[in-house]
Amino acid sequence: MTGKETQGAVRLIVPGGYGRSIDVAKGQYVGVRDIEGGQCGDFWAIAADDLDHFLSPSYTWVHLGRIQPRVGDQLVTNRREPILTIIADDVGWHDMLVPACDKQRYERYYGVTGHRNCHDNFLEAMGMRDWGKRPVPQPFNLFMNTLVELDGTMHIKDPISKAGDIVLMMAMMSLIVVVSACPMDLNPVGGQGITDLEILTGNTEEEILTSIK
Amino acid sequence: MTGKETQGAVRLIVPGGYGRSIDVAKGQYVGVRDIEGGQCGDFWAIAADDLDHFLSPSYTWVHLGRIQPRVGDQLVTNRREPILTIIADDVGWHDMLVPACDKQRYERYYGVTGHRNCHDNFLEAMGMRDWGKRPVPQPFNLFMNTLVELDGTMHIKDPISKAGDIVLMMAMMSLIVVVSACPMDLNPVGGQGITDLEILTGNTEEEILTSIK
Repeated sequence: MTGKETQGAVRLIVPGGYGRSIDVAKGQYVGVRDIEGGQCGDFWAIAADDLDHFLSPSYTWVHLGRIQPRVGDQLVTNRREPILTIIADDVGWHDMLVPACDKQRYERYYGVTGHRNCHDNFLEAMGMRDWGKRPVPQPFNLFMNTLVELDGTMHIKDPISKAGDIVLMMAMMSLIVVVSACPMDLNPVGGQGITDLEILTGNTEEEILTSIK
Repeated sequence: MTGKETQGAVRLIVPGGYGRSIDVAKGQYVGVRDIEGGQCGDFWAIAADDLDHFLSPSYTWVHLGRIQPRVGDQLVTNRREPILTIIADDVGWHDMLVPACDKQRYERYYGVTGHRNCHDNFLEAMGMRDWGKRPVPQPFNLFMNTLVELDGTMHIKDPISKAGDIVLMMAMMSLIVVVSACPMDLNPVGGQGITDLEILTGNTEEEILTSIK
């Protein structure tokens, strides 16, 4: 017994191409599951008590000495405070380099207007939380497969996540978590189609893993 | 003749360990010179008309397909708009991954309190410009030598810039440029000591290069 009330995991579907937010208390677990496989999920974690304090890929790279986190790693904020610990990861390779796709990405690079995008999904999901005109932070792109060569060349490759793959993390502070099931269907990042993700939260790792058995 | 008034380059010393800001008009050139060599310079460019619009390494990586810019490359903002073009570069290898050092960097990683740092240098340099409580953007770290291996491991290595090396860029919009001569003296980034940098602005490339002959 942890002393916490256990009421079972909370499960929230993120429809393909859309974003959702959820509250995660300090010490709780949060998982993101790639239901059908090959679906990138832009993931943000923001301190519940200060919207200017959030998970930061670049501060995490310096903390880890790596641009790819692994199981057991602590992710840190833009103030270098631990914000999440990676508890389990069925994939083991995600992206932290690529910013959220936005309307400019579709218009300038693909000539497509009015496309759904992770930037606006973030703002929609945060719409009730007074985000204001702050820039959208750099996301942690779950189930996204990028590679950097020694000369700095960056490749966005086909996703490698399989149906049911999950990344499970523990919150080191109370958080707002936002996940966007990335609507990008114009380059390899989206794999074979845009599909749903699932966010799971719970008080224990077992609670979450049991809920999806 | 470009039609612009030519009054000679403006030269501004950035003392080692400190930060300075300067205005650069659209179409002007801005250079940063490593006077003694081996001195990292955290560089920021912010749109003069909107402080929430700035040079962004991560959007630039997607734009270039590379995490290292080269001569001729356009750097872009967090709205994917061209903000600077690299005109000349005596070094050819700089860092865009590492966030500005800050008091937490010195306290948490080296146990040192009260150390000067690029984060606070940025805020000092922007102090008259209503930056408020916005987070400090990710810098473009001139004369900083990092390497990412194929497995994602990131190394901060000895600097390779030599005395007098310069990076010259053209402004694609009117900018506030901030440069911090990084005070980091606790890892290899600082080379053999913390020394001055110089910011140069002018209406032509020749104007700037002539001023330092």
